[in-house]
Amino acid sequence: MKILDPKNFTVPGFKAWGIHCGVKKNEKKDLMLIASDREAAVAGVFTKNRVKAASVVQNMTRVKSGTGQIMIANSGCANACTGKRGSVDARETAELTAKEFGVKPEAVYVASTGVIGEYLPMPKITNGIATVAGLLSPSGWEQAAEAIMTTDMYPKLSVVQEEISGKTITLAGIAKGSGMIHPDMATMLCFIVTDANISAPMLKKALLTSTDKSFNCITVDGDMSTNDMILCMANGAAGNKKPAPGSKEQKKFQACLDAVTRSLALQVVKDGEGATKFVEIEVQGAKTPVEAKRAAMTVAKSSLVKTALFGEDLNWGRIMAALGYAGVDMDEARTDIFIGKAKIVEKGLGQGKPADREAALALKQREVKITIDLHKGKAGAVVWTCDLSYEYVKINAAYRS
Amino acid sequence: MKILDPKNFTVPGFKAWGIHCGVKKNEKKDLMLIASDREAAVAGVFTKNRVKAASVVQNMTRVKSGTGQIMIANSGCANACTGKRGSVDARETAELTAKEFGVKPEAVYVASTGVIGEYLPMPKITNGIATVAGLLSPSGWEQAAEAIMTTDMYPKLSVVQEEISGKTITLAGIAKGSGMIHPDMATMLCFIVTDANISAPMLKKALLTSTDKSFNCITVDGDMSTNDMILCMANGAAGNKKPAPGSKEQKKFQACLDAVTRSLALQVVKDGEGATKFVEIEVQGAKTPVEAKRAAMTVAKSSLVKTALFGEDLNWGRIMAALGYAGVDMDEARTDIFIGKAKIVEKGLGQGKPADREAALALKQREVKITIDLHKGKAGAVVWTCDLSYEYVKINAAYRS
Repeated sequence: MKILDPKNFTVPGFKAWGIHCGVKKNEKKDLMLIASDREAAVAGVFTKNRVKAASVVQNMTRVKSGTGQIMIANSGCANACTGKRGSVDARETAELTAKEFGVKPEAVYVASTGVIGEYLPMPKITNGIATVAGLLSPSGWEQAAEAIMTTDMYPKLSVVQEEISGKTITLAGIAKGSGMIHPDMATMLCFIVTDANISAPMLKKALLTSTDKSFNCITVDGDMSTNDMILCMANGAAGNKKPAPGSKEQKKFQACLDAVTRSLALQVVKDGEGATKFVEIEVQGAKTPVEAKRAAMTVAKSSLVKTALFGEDLNWGRIMAALGYAGVDMDEARTDIFIGKAKIVEKGLGQGKPADREAALALKQREVKITIDLHKGKAGAVVWTCDLSYEYVKINAAYRS
Repeated sequence: MKILDPKNFTVPGFKAWGIHCGVKKNEKKDLMLIASDREAAVAGVFTKNRVKAASVVQNMTRVKSGTGQIMIANSGCANACTGKRGSVDARETAELTAKEFGVKPEAVYVASTGVIGEYLPMPKITNGIATVAGLLSPSGWEQAAEAIMTTDMYPKLSVVQEEISGKTITLAGIAKGSGMIHPDMATMLCFIVTDANISAPMLKKALLTSTDKSFNCITVDGDMSTNDMILCMANGAAGNKKPAPGSKEQKKFQACLDAVTRSLALQVVKDGEGATKFVEIEVQGAKTPVEAKRAAMTVAKSSLVKTALFGEDLNWGRIMAALGYAGVDMDEARTDIFIGKAKIVEKGLGQGKPADREAALALKQREVKITIDLHKGKAGAVVWTCDLSYEYVKINAAYRS
């Protein structure tokens, strides 16, 4: 697998672009379009929130066909909690886009992100669709990635190449994150495209596998959004033979999808709202993989742990306390905790200097690794989070203002 | 029931005081003692965290006897995650105190709060016990309440009087809270005393009932502590006839305990770390009481809801999103949301002005009420929380420094 420069790439058969059409009050881009030149296999993962945006509900039906051709997304307005009018707007967005490209409306997947409870400004969207369709470019991915940003500080892209059945395939993704990032849902907006030729059922399975190891392993603030989705289109332009189930070629494709989703998920955490630190939390020695992940995620979500990380404060008691309420089999007297490579807690007891001094240095870095060994079994898990800073509060106190 | 001035009261048969003995680096009080002049019935509620401080473990055993006479607590050091030495220190604290009063060590209940992972400075505690024992006063409750504070801004006290079987009984409590406040555990340190004559089993039942309606209905930051406990002592000095199970007198006692625990729980939320707002969240029309409470608590815990409250931002979509992931039976299209008296959402849809204007005014108050009607059933619940401010982050980033 080859990792390409995300600033400059193309995916055969796909075009993309992003513009400002007027949903956002400032001049920032707010409408993105990705089009395949032929019908593609499509898979999707959607938020598990019971309150779902109109676009999510619409796509959950459409993705059952396993096919599609266009993805369109606006930022600045979530079109969630908008009732019947919201559904009509999502349908109309798809219809207008379909007309522009001469495809059936069911081939269009709509996504929205932004403030909940407000209606889409349909005249602006209508004009925007015509404009962005006219600007589509094979290398317009950064523009597309910018157009789905909300409180993101930078656009998020990732792209890899691989040989499958003697053909070069490209797999690329763009994502937006920042707030409301939490596991066990589709986490945020993410659009993945590939020219690989692959069946829709295999694509779906691959996407679920990748999501579990990437977007479902990150947390920023523990809130779960109404709008989040991951969509993946494979248009077959590479002309490879479809991988057979269980084949080496299938594994290669999975590795590509794993790499891109993991890269995008980590970019989302690194750009977490107000984050000053990127934190990897690894739990080892858990009784089961589920307990390992639950323990790691409980530490990752603790406001007290996250504020201590922001303050570069070696308050390991908060880590131990979070493990204690994680609902997993653990025994304080067996637990070891490492900050970076420094073992600051052994069998439940603080080790004092020089371990604390080494850990204090590790805490001052931009990237911090916390390792916990429960010594209860052989299962492990790794999750990623960020710290909780003044900026998080500021961004979220004034989000709509 | 009569509510007394918490600044100036006595509880027959009890004395209390608080001093600075040197656990805290500043000059603030850090050692509290409460003594009954006779053996009392004792009940306790303890943290459900698997990682428990030495004092919690010790008290959980002692409370099985249903009797006791002395409560001693230090702030500044949690004596948690301190292994065998921690257990020895907790036992020694009880033994030294017992010797001072000529009672058996099992009659002494020890509590600690503060930084996890550090050892108690036993020479300072030893001197402190002798000093504080010599200063005990029937009206030393405010000093006692000050000595258990950590990041609390003010001491928390509550006291009521009632006639039971023709005798006047007094019931008073002190508490400390501020951080790590979360339901489904004993929540923080709280010491309750009464001169009522009541059996230990009835006292235990009453305490569990009260806790469920008070401390288990509040949340500050969703973290669960290793040290938290509620202890209640009833020494019978009032000389009333013990209430019979199910009697009117029992209900009167329950009402007293309910009032004091509720007052203390609300004081804890109002003094939540960095809180600028006190928020009551009521869910109506839930299918079951459990779902009502879960829905209310999920909204209360949402970082996005709490930062929006801090910013006085009418972002009701975050409330709806939290309800959507609460794991309760709900339907966006049936849900109503009120801020104060303003119905800003009806059947899932924003009502716009003038409701929004009225709600915006309500959001500017120090106390905010959010009411949610799920229209799914007849169950309801009320919980209390505070907003999430810059100050919360500041306090917790620098807690140990």
